[in-house]
Amino acid sequence: MYTDLSEAQLRDHRGVVTDPGDFDDFWAGTLAEARAAGWPVRVEPVSTGLTSIDVFDVTFAGFAGHPVRAWLRMPRGAGAALPTLVQYVGYGGGRGHPLENLLWASAGFAHLQMDTRGQGSGWSRGVTGDPGVAGPEVPGVMTRGIADRHTYYYRRLITDAVRAVDAARTLPMVDPTRVAVFGQSQGGALALAAGALAPGVRAVVALVPFLCDIPRSVVVTDARPFREIRDYLAIHRDAEDQVLTTLAYVDGVNFARRCQRPARYSVALMDDIVPPSGVYAAVNAHAGPTELAVWRYNGHEAGGIDDDEAALRFLRGHLVDD
Amino acid sequence: MYTDLSEAQLRDHRGVVTDPGDFDDFWAGTLAEARAAGWPVRVEPVSTGLTSIDVFDVTFAGFAGHPVRAWLRMPRGAGAALPTLVQYVGYGGGRGHPLENLLWASAGFAHLQMDTRGQGSGWSRGVTGDPGVAGPEVPGVMTRGIADRHTYYYRRLITDAVRAVDAARTLPMVDPTRVAVFGQSQGGALALAAGALAPGVRAVVALVPFLCDIPRSVVVTDARPFREIRDYLAIHRDAEDQVLTTLAYVDGVNFARRCQRPARYSVALMDDIVPPSGVYAAVNAHAGPTELAVWRYNGHEAGGIDDDEAALRFLRGHLVDD
Amino acid sequence: MYTDLSEAQLRDHRGVVTDPGDFDDFWAGTLAEARAAGWPVRVEPVSTGLTSIDVFDVTFAGFAGHPVRAWLRMPRGAGAALPTLVQYVGYGGGRGHPLENLLWASAGFAHLQMDTRGQGSGWSRGVTGDPGVAGPEVPGVMTRGIADRHTYYYRRLITDAVRAVDAARTLPMVDPTRVAVFGQSQGGALALAAGALAPGVRAVVALVPFLCDIPRSVVVTDARPFREIRDYLAIHRDAEDQVLTTLAYVDGVNFARRCQRPARYSVALMDDIVPPSGVYAAVNAHAGPTELAVWRYNGHEAGGIDDDEAALRFLRGHLVDD
Amino acid sequence: MYTDLSEAQLRDHRGVVTDPGDFDDFWAGTLAEARAAGWPVRVEPVSTGLTSIDVFDVTFAGFAGHPVRAWLRMPRGAGAALPTLVQYVGYGGGRGHPLENLLWASAGFAHLQMDTRGQGSGWSRGVTGDPGVAGPEVPGVMTRGIADRHTYYYRRLITDAVRAVDAARTLPMVDPTRVAVFGQSQGGALALAAGALAPGVRAVVALVPFLCDIPRSVVVTDARPFREIRDYLAIHRDAEDQVLTTLAYVDGVNFARRCQRPARYSVALMDDIVPPSGVYAAVNAHAGPTELAVWRYNGHEAGGIDDDEAALRFLRGHLVDD
Amino acid sequence: MYTDLSEAQLRDHRGVVTDPGDFDDFWAGTLAEARAAGWPVRVEPVSTGLTSIDVFDVTFAGFAGHPVRAWLRMPRGAGAALPTLVQYVGYGGGRGHPLENLLWASAGFAHLQMDTRGQGSGWSRGVTGDPGVAGPEVPGVMTRGIADRHTYYYRRLITDAVRAVDAARTLPMVDPTRVAVFGQSQGGALALAAGALAPGVRAVVALVPFLCDIPRSVVVTDARPFREIRDYLAIHRDAEDQVLTTLAYVDGVNFARRCQRPARYSVALMDDIVPPSGVYAAVNAHAGPTELAVWRYNGHEAGGIDDDEAALRFLRGHLVDD
Amino acid sequence: MYTDLSEAQLRDHRGVVTDPGDFDDFWAGTLAEARAAGWPVRVEPVSTGLTSIDVFDVTFAGFAGHPVRAWLRMPRGAGAALPTLVQYVGYGGGRGHPLENLLWASAGFAHLQMDTRGQGSGWSRGVTGDPGVAGPEVPGVMTRGIADRHTYYYRRLITDAVRAVDAARTLPMVDPTRVAVFGQSQGGALALAAGALAPGVRAVVALVPFLCDIPRSVVVTDARPFREIRDYLAIHRDAEDQVLTTLAYVDGVNFARRCQRPARYSVALMDDIVPPSGVYAAVNAHAGPTELAVWRYNGHEAGGIDDDEAALRFLRGHLVDD
Repeated sequence: MYTDLSEAQLRDHRGVVTDPGDFDDFWAGTLAEARAAGWPVRVEPVSTGLTSIDVFDVTFAGFAGHPVRAWLRMPRGAGAALPTLVQYVGYGGGRGHPLENLLWASAGFAHLQMDTRGQGSGWSRGVTGDPGVAGPEVPGVMTRGIADRHTYYYRRLITDAVRAVDAARTLPMVDPTRVAVFGQSQGGALALAAGALAPGVRAVVALVPFLCDIPRSVVVTDARPFREIRDYLAIHRDAEDQVLTTLAYVDGVNFARRCQRPARYSVALMDDIVPPSGVYAAVNAHAGPTELAVWRYNGHEAGGIDDDEAALRFLRGHLVDD
Repeated sequence: MYTDLSEAQLRDHRGVVTDPGDFDDFWAGTLAEARAAGWPVRVEPVSTGLTSIDVFDVTFAGFAGHPVRAWLRMPRGAGAALPTLVQYVGYGGGRGHPLENLLWASAGFAHLQMDTRGQGSGWSRGVTGDPGVAGPEVPGVMTRGIADRHTYYYRRLITDAVRAVDAARTLPMVDPTRVAVFGQSQGGALALAAGALAPGVRAVVALVPFLCDIPRSVVVTDARPFREIRDYLAIHRDAEDQVLTTLAYVDGVNFARRCQRPARYSVALMDDIVPPSGVYAAVNAHAGPTELAVWRYNGHEAGGIDDDEAALRFLRGHLVDD
Repeated sequence: MYTDLSEAQLRDHRGVVTDPGDFDDFWAGTLAEARAAGWPVRVEPVSTGLTSIDVFDVTFAGFAGHPVRAWLRMPRGAGAALPTLVQYVGYGGGRGHPLENLLWASAGFAHLQMDTRGQGSGWSRGVTGDPGVAGPEVPGVMTRGIADRHTYYYRRLITDAVRAVDAARTLPMVDPTRVAVFGQSQGGALALAAGALAPGVRAVVALVPFLCDIPRSVVVTDARPFREIRDYLAIHRDAEDQVLTTLAYVDGVNFARRCQRPARYSVALMDDIVPPSGVYAAVNAHAGPTELAVWRYNGHEAGGIDDDEAALRFLRGHLVDD
Repeated sequence: MYTDLSEAQLRDHRGVVTDPGDFDDFWAGTLAEARAAGWPVRVEPVSTGLTSIDVFDVTFAGFAGHPVRAWLRMPRGAGAALPTLVQYVGYGGGRGHPLENLLWASAGFAHLQMDTRGQGSGWSRGVTGDPGVAGPEVPGVMTRGIADRHTYYYRRLITDAVRAVDAARTLPMVDPTRVAVFGQSQGGALALAAGALAPGVRAVVALVPFLCDIPRSVVVTDARPFREIRDYLAIHRDAEDQVLTTLAYVDGVNFARRCQRPARYSVALMDDIVPPSGVYAAVNAHAGPTELAVWRYNGHEAGGIDDDEAALRFLRGHLVDD
Repeated sequence: MYTDLSEAQLRDHRGVVTDPGDFDDFWAGTLAEARAAGWPVRVEPVSTGLTSIDVFDVTFAGFAGHPVRAWLRMPRGAGAALPTLVQYVGYGGGRGHPLENLLWASAGFAHLQMDTRGQGSGWSRGVTGDPGVAGPEVPGVMTRGIADRHTYYYRRLITDAVRAVDAARTLPMVDPTRVAVFGQSQGGALALAAGALAPGVRAVVALVPFLCDIPRSVVVTDARPFREIRDYLAIHRDAEDQVLTTLAYVDGVNFARRCQRPARYSVALMDDIVPPSGVYAAVNAHAGPTELAVWRYNGHEAGGIDDDEAALRFLRGHLVDD
Repeated sequence: MYTDLSEAQLRDHRGVVTDPGDFDDFWAGTLAEARAAGWPVRVEPVSTGLTSIDVFDVTFAGFAGHPVRAWLRMPRGAGAALPTLVQYVGYGGGRGHPLENLLWASAGFAHLQMDTRGQGSGWSRGVTGDPGVAGPEVPGVMTRGIADRHTYYYRRLITDAVRAVDAARTLPMVDPTRVAVFGQSQGGALALAAGALAPGVRAVVALVPFLCDIPRSVVVTDARPFREIRDYLAIHRDAEDQVLTTLAYVDGVNFARRCQRPARYSVALMDDIVPPSGVYAAVNAHAGPTELAVWRYNGHEAGGIDDDEAALRFLRGHLVDD
């Protein structure tokens, strides 16, 4: 069943999240620090038995120079630097297995799939740790360090996402003028953030992006991971202001407001994990041109392979045909 | 938690299903009829935008000559007839989308993925109907036509599976001496059946195969799809003998007894959909040599991509290096 | 809790389903074909041990002349042709056991209870198969053949329902001028359809009728069987138009618009299986006079035996006292 | 799935409940008191509109002379005193509606259906209160007054059940030499008790009887109503001895040991409400001859109408043909 | 997620419950009868091993003079009569264990915690029975005797609550001019009732009070214990008027209208057991001054220890500092 | 229902966990490092409004000298150094609120309740962070740093537990010769560890202790938190040996083997969170004298306040009367 406002109401929906006055300064400072702690990307070939795709194990400098892992998949025998897709993954997962997720390289792109720090044990495997933990937390990362925007988990993860673009653009097999970011759910939220913050991004695909209009999303769904925030506030009853302040700095609506790049979104009207109103709030705030795929009968899986197929078309249009 | 006998008990476990005296006659007659109703395979290229894989839409003659669909995925520019994998899919799904499931062709195989008649609406899409329905049924196909082995749904589907091998071996891009069958869950059950019944199969991969030792499986799990049989018998209380008789003709243990080809199985000790005892019963009955991967902490997802990686190695050993 | 609009909003609610221009032609053609394939009703006495009721096993020609079964229960020793009730049953069930459902014959009516093709294994037993399957489907019959209104399951079942009235009126123990139709849930939907399409129906009882205002119902409940349609569209994402077009031809609101006969409805405000808004849409569209029982604290069981008692009174008024 | 021991183990299973030394004295004293407080049965005709069955609203003196209600249904126009069935109902329900439950009178029996004190609000309606409450309790009646066998709810209800037989045998339309008792679940437990305690009972039908071998049943199922006892003991942690002592006086196994009359039982191997081991313990303890129907694929609904059909045959054999 | 109206709507929300014309007469008569049946409070010291708190086992005369138990906890060595808190407990529980709930006496108050008749087996232990049962009921006490306001369970329990205040004020260690009542959920409802009905109450704390605006609450939540009323009406379909009439006499909104004492309430916007609209209806109807704590991210646990801390401050203000 | 072996089997049950050869060295080294990083305890009075108990906010040096918080509650006006209880809390919680948990100080003990690093957001509040995170993890702390025993979360938490005893014994209000440790679930596991590792502990209370015989516990329950380990191994399929090796160093059975102090345990036979077999394995391995309370009808709440009451008696025996 529909899980949020009616489709007509959603079309004009704007979120309730505030836009902090020092948002841009916060992120400029954060990224400057991360870049100051950077070091050169490491790339190692992986033996997979695949005959049409080459896979590389990539390590790059993320937040505070922490090592972050990724897979780079390339069509075998690509002669020149390729148009490149940087992918972020959904909550709980990691970069997975080299043999998974072959679509993007099979379609002719260089494909960098970033691991997610401190997750990677839910629905796909990861290897990257999260050294920055502070304070009490609800199981999961949604409330890790949430008492202050400087210690918050997503400050670190979003920085990783931006630095993944930086890293990709230094690789010889990547055409640094033709890079796009994409992801689903948490991956979509990171793509929005990277689209707003990372230099050199040409296009963004954010499928059912998570972390949008968080103050409303937290009170209109009971499902995890938004539920983690509710659970935290149910125990830390005096922390509401502090927590909502921190969250404003990672809200997808605030990144959308600053994202000049063309973006393709999707939304699912029966999604009970990422309430549709948050996605519409981001779409309606987006600074650049947008496309939106509306899936009326889907939950959080949204368009699935149909979203991917349309994303391929959109990305080819912006990176290859453009 | 563990869902069945202890690992030590499982190792020697043999099932309780009986082996009907006319089992071989039944299947010989069924396949002879199906072949008599056959017609030439149809193959149409599909436009996908992929640069390293070609996809074809295949239609072949299944049970009673009913048209059955499949995808054929090929590494682009394969010069010669290739070693070939015929894949069957799990309960509820269909052949899916051309852009899905690129692993096997990316690894250098021709890959024929058969659609499942009358399913294809659960977790992946299908287009093939099942024209042979008869009698009352529980939602799902487990009890469709179950009152008689001649009208039973799985008689038709297993025949499709055998005929898919027949069809593949007539194609110019397929090396008919190097064909293997594989699948997971229902797909694993069909692979066992095709491994026993289809001429020209060199190896079998049956991951957490469904439909094994059905009389026990039905009373040791409450989960669908085995549950459908229980639900039927809970209403049709006088049909137990009739139903168990029908089911003996499609039980994976009976196919394993007749399968001379080498087979790789997997089993998951926390699987509540396919009870591990059924898998062990099949492995312990298998006529040819077997390998078994035991996943102690997994449910029905079993080894997932790790099962696939090992399957690739096993299949390469039997089809390429052999 | 209330599962739909407030009671005040419901009172004026009209559905969103469209009324196809060729609706009447479609059904006229369908029924003409079915009658052309007809053959005489078969009636066999059943030995039950009951002392006050006689039961007969009836077989009549349904859609495409397919054999459809029913029970006919009669007060023992009825001297003359009786006022007659034709009953249709709810989703998943069948005509059940001869010893069940003795109320209507104990109240002095001839009572023909039609079996439901291809169901009859959920909460009561059936024996009638559904030979017309086509295309992929979700477990259950809601999406069977849904790609085209000609192949759709409910085209066949509604035709059976109309033909059951035709069949009853040919029997010597039935007074063909005093026939009513009734049912609950799916049975209520069939009663509405038969009330609109079958000649000779004097009155209709549709208790919490299913299949009304389907486009809205599908998006306001998660429960089966409406859920089957949502699940189909969640996978067959491009089929929305096709599916909604098919469904308009079986929507109870469109039958209500054409039903001139007096009808008694019931609705339950806590029903999460048949959303109350669909029932109100049908009541408010009904062409003939209507009564509506509103059950404020019930779910889909609605008025239960109280609905039956009131139905008896209503039916006696229209068939006996009238 | 099977919910208890294997079928082979069940066949020889004996329960763990103890047989208190003063069991017979306890019940003899209880019944003597109840009879001393008795008064004549009241019988009022009910207007139902049924043409083949007459229904009467009966009030008789139960425990401590408390008024207990029942329906008496009779085939219309019975010339002589009839063989009679006294029925007790399952947990939570009451005697229901006069128009329900017409099978037994339609089959030629006088049929007295006793209401259950203080229940009658779950799945069928009742009107009889339970004036004897004492002490703290878990919602439901399982722990009402359980601290002492004299205040325990089931002391009162079982007395009602015996007094219902007494009452029936005083009615002119009842042949006092041909009375049987029957029921399902709680009703089966009451039938066993009445079969052991009430003079003049010729046969007993106990379908999936509840309250058998309670000490084991409470620790092998989590389902209500046995769960109520567990919940009570989880809070009243020092009450185990007291509670188990009380329960021994109402345990079906202890009544079975004393029941000389022929009995038909049923058991369901997938029953998670009444564990099968309790039923087997009662059957194996039964003093008189027994029949047992084993339903392998059913839960607590057990044989349903098939159990009823067989019960009719059994009861006709003992009350009519004998 | 939020479970009821938006916070803005709640602020002005008034309930739908009616205020019976004879409400005051009903309660005046009820209490007069109870007082007529009264007898002197009994107080027995309990040996607990505590060094700073003395505990007494109190028995007082409740409804109809029935004995009702309570714990009285006192700071050890209190020289003079103390300001006193009378506490009522939530649904299902009892007065618990002497070693529990030490906060209030540790803060310097005399603390009388009343047991709840016929409950005391759910989440804490009780010992008090409910001798007044009548009529059929749903498991639990919500529908016990609900057919008539004179036999209704809550008439008895509310009378107990008022009589607990009467009893406390007769004790030598209690300062009868400084008594407050408090409780959570059902305990909050009893506190509101005692605040309106009991002479000598100085202040009221009602945390997420249950039983407010019952006609609406019953239709906007599915959770127990409100669910018991719905379940009763779902079976006793003709009893709606009777039941709603009875409930108006115990509705917290009607007590709030009559409560002149200052009150502190709390409400939780994610409460699905006590819908927030009922609490706001009571707050907005309250005759005396009110404070309301709004917990945005909590369910029925509401403010927990934070509610207690604020309650201590409020009670100290009214009983000690005032 | 019973969740594990029968009570008779449990009585002799020994676990399957191995005892690593360098277990003692590992912990000796770990504690030496922690003590080397230590600094003096900080103690600040807290204003609570309580009249009989003083509360202090304590900060001490835990693992690696990380600051760990605790509450110290003291009977007001204690003249001399007191017998002291160090308490550890259950999974997910923290030290809670100063006004909670007043039993132990009310009974005359000094009571130090340690906060749990990186938890404190589930059922009670905490403030202590966990700075040592490494590697991918499942939400929760069970798999944090599990790839190596040196980085594992419980190495840090157990060190905190030992250091809490060290810290307590330096305080002037604590009699360092009369210190005991206690806790429930995770708190019980920490108590066992501290009982084995911390100098100066006189007695141990471990109520339904968690983390005992982990290799078996993980495969006999599906419930969290053991489930986190299963979920990790279900994704990190190659990590079984590594993970089980790490876990052996924190297994309660290995601490019990080394604990010479008298210990009181409790176990609940219906516990599905901490399987009873693990508790019995620890009891049966315990080096010192033991008492065991067996709760037959409880889940993980076990004896609740009854366990506490008995613990008080046991602790008074060992710390006061001894």
